[in-house]
Amino acid sequence: MNNIDAAGSAHSDIRDLRDAAFTAEVLRLLDNKTKPVGALGRLEALALRIAQVLGDAQPVLREPQMLVCAGDHGLAGRGVSAYPADVTWQMVHNFLSGGAAVSVLARQHALALTVVDCGVRREFEPQPGLLVRRIAPGTADALVQGAMTPEQCAQAIANGREIVRGLPGNALLLGEMGIGNSSSAALLLARLGGLDLAQCVGPGTGLDATGLRHKREVLSEVLARHEQARSPLDALAALGGFEIATLVGAVLEAASQRRVIVVDGFITGAAVLVAHALQPWVTQRCVASHESAEPGHALLLHQLGLSPLLRLDLRLGEGSGAALAWPLLVSACAILREMASFDSAGVSRQSEAGGGTA
Amino acid sequence: MNNIDAAGSAHSDIRDLRDAAFTAEVLRLLDNKTKPVGALGRLEALALRIAQVLGDAQPVLREPQMLVCAGDHGLAGRGVSAYPADVTWQMVHNFLSGGAAVSVLARQHALALTVVDCGVRREFEPQPGLLVRRIAPGTADALVQGAMTPEQCAQAIANGREIVRGLPGNALLLGEMGIGNSSSAALLLARLGGLDLAQCVGPGTGLDATGLRHKREVLSEVLARHEQARSPLDALAALGGFEIATLVGAVLEAASQRRVIVVDGFITGAAVLVAHALQPWVTQRCVASHESAEPGHALLLHQLGLSPLLRLDLRLGEGSGAALAWPLLVSACAILREMASFDSAGVSRQSEAGGGTA
Repeated sequence: MNNIDAAGSAHSDIRDLRDAAFTAEVLRLLDNKTKPVGALGRLEALALRIAQVLGDAQPVLREPQMLVCAGDHGLAGRGVSAYPADVTWQMVHNFLSGGAAVSVLARQHALALTVVDCGVRREFEPQPGLLVRRIAPGTADALVQGAMTPEQCAQAIANGREIVRGLPGNALLLGEMGIGNSSSAALLLARLGGLDLAQCVGPGTGLDATGLRHKREVLSEVLARHEQARSPLDALAALGGFEIATLVGAVLEAASQRRVIVVDGFITGAAVLVAHALQPWVTQRCVASHESAEPGHALLLHQLGLSPLLRLDLRLGEGSGAALAWPLLVSACAILREMASFDSAGVSRQSEAGGGTA
Repeated sequence: MNNIDAAGSAHSDIRDLRDAAFTAEVLRLLDNKTKPVGALGRLEALALRIAQVLGDAQPVLREPQMLVCAGDHGLAGRGVSAYPADVTWQMVHNFLSGGAAVSVLARQHALALTVVDCGVRREFEPQPGLLVRRIAPGTADALVQGAMTPEQCAQAIANGREIVRGLPGNALLLGEMGIGNSSSAALLLARLGGLDLAQCVGPGTGLDATGLRHKREVLSEVLARHEQARSPLDALAALGGFEIATLVGAVLEAASQRRVIVVDGFITGAAVLVAHALQPWVTQRCVASHESAEPGHALLLHQLGLSPLLRLDLRLGEGSGAALAWPLLVSACAILREMASFDSAGVSRQSEAGGGTA
């Protein structure tokens, strides 16, 4: 099961051949389904991707896990968000009591919901569905120092790995909550993607033009302050957040276990970007659920080489986009497993057309 | 329940005001949900649309019906499709035995599947799930005469109305099968939309460049042959098909009963175009599930003023796109019904932001 060496090993030629043969088998199965070749469009590419991740031409998605990582950000005190920082704490409560968008959608699709306190400012009473993996009550102000120390960052990554090892199933949906975390995502995209910061910064969940200008100014200072933080881990520690680092660990672990990883929006995408910078092959295990209204998200998906399934102008996060796209993954598997072939259904192929176009 | 007079009546001013008040109520509900205003993007517009159709700010979609209408086309003998005409009959069998894409997807989403023989060339043995409303064994060759007589066309529309009256639930998903029916859809779009035919004609389920050129030539002749068929019903009879006319009746009836109508691809869209030409307000009851790879489909949706939920490069028909989009409708309703409000969840609003952007 462990493919952590997928980036290269003495046996990579043989594995490449085996992978190519498997891909050809899945494509042959799809082309023999009772439909014109390719008529299910991107659903067929999705079916192939899931089959490849699970190494199964008749894939079954089992016990899907929605993992929502939450953390607070020192930068929130700099007015980079339209919301007060305590909303992180309030929304975690809302997730757990079933009233948030991700709670409603997870219920609809029978996704097991786990919320992780990775470092929210206010502590929580213990409650079902909540994992406490607090690094600190919020990150430091990245305008002054690194958001995390290297040790804190490593601990958060280790937490993410450990959490995924404790979850059942073969599919992981990513979600997050953290007032100010679209700033971290923009900073990570600019630094790791080598992009102009202004392109990467957007209104998040609701800044107006003045707020956006201010956010750009603050983040520009932050990026300059951490000019030397260039490696994926240095950048993550300096510019990221506890929830993002925990998600990086979760992505690395899920990828190495060959789980299907369903990426949500801009912030979980930034976690995948860091994981990808550490292990480029992790994106082979990923499905991009949607492209959000946040302008940097399209750039981020382009960096990851992922095509979003949905474009619904979402800008909520939480895992809401991942949950909305989930039934498409189930459909893609069902097409592979349950659709009849031309032979089994006694349906004529295109090439047998008597009234053809010749 | 009957809104067939929605296009205008002595009471339309009062109804307009009532509708506006209802819309404002739904928007207020959405804006009070625990998320930034508009953060669920197009899902919020979808929730509003469904609430408006059902006249319920807490909408529940009940007993959704997938109605797949099948019929053969005289034009198929002119080589306008990549498949032999008998595939219509074969695929109806495949729908009913559970092996087709629409069968698999309907099962996934618990959509009741009804297949209607509106006039397939070969007859079927009676079987569960099949309604027989045959007008004739395939339409006439529209290159020689009208595809249907006015009487046949009227009968097919009446059949569609009667079928919907016999189906439970408050949501109707449209599907179709008929080798050659992308030709009818293109002809109807060109005639009723006043568009250049060449723009409206595409490869359907799989013509190559030569086949597409031939299809364009044949359809150009057909359109010229029926130059005088300009009214919606004249155009439908001359250029349409039994399955399309049956769908027109189904759309008219479902709209008048305030059911949510989920439009599939190019062919069911053409049926909605005819229904819209007869009763413009029917599109108020419609949700466009997807935009297909067939080039005319985007033009058709533009004519109808509908925005597709999905863009997955599907080109299959059957109702497959409608089924794939269905969970998004369920999600939209769940958001309205189940998400907590700011007050009920104790979450701070944007305007209360202490660390705001001022």
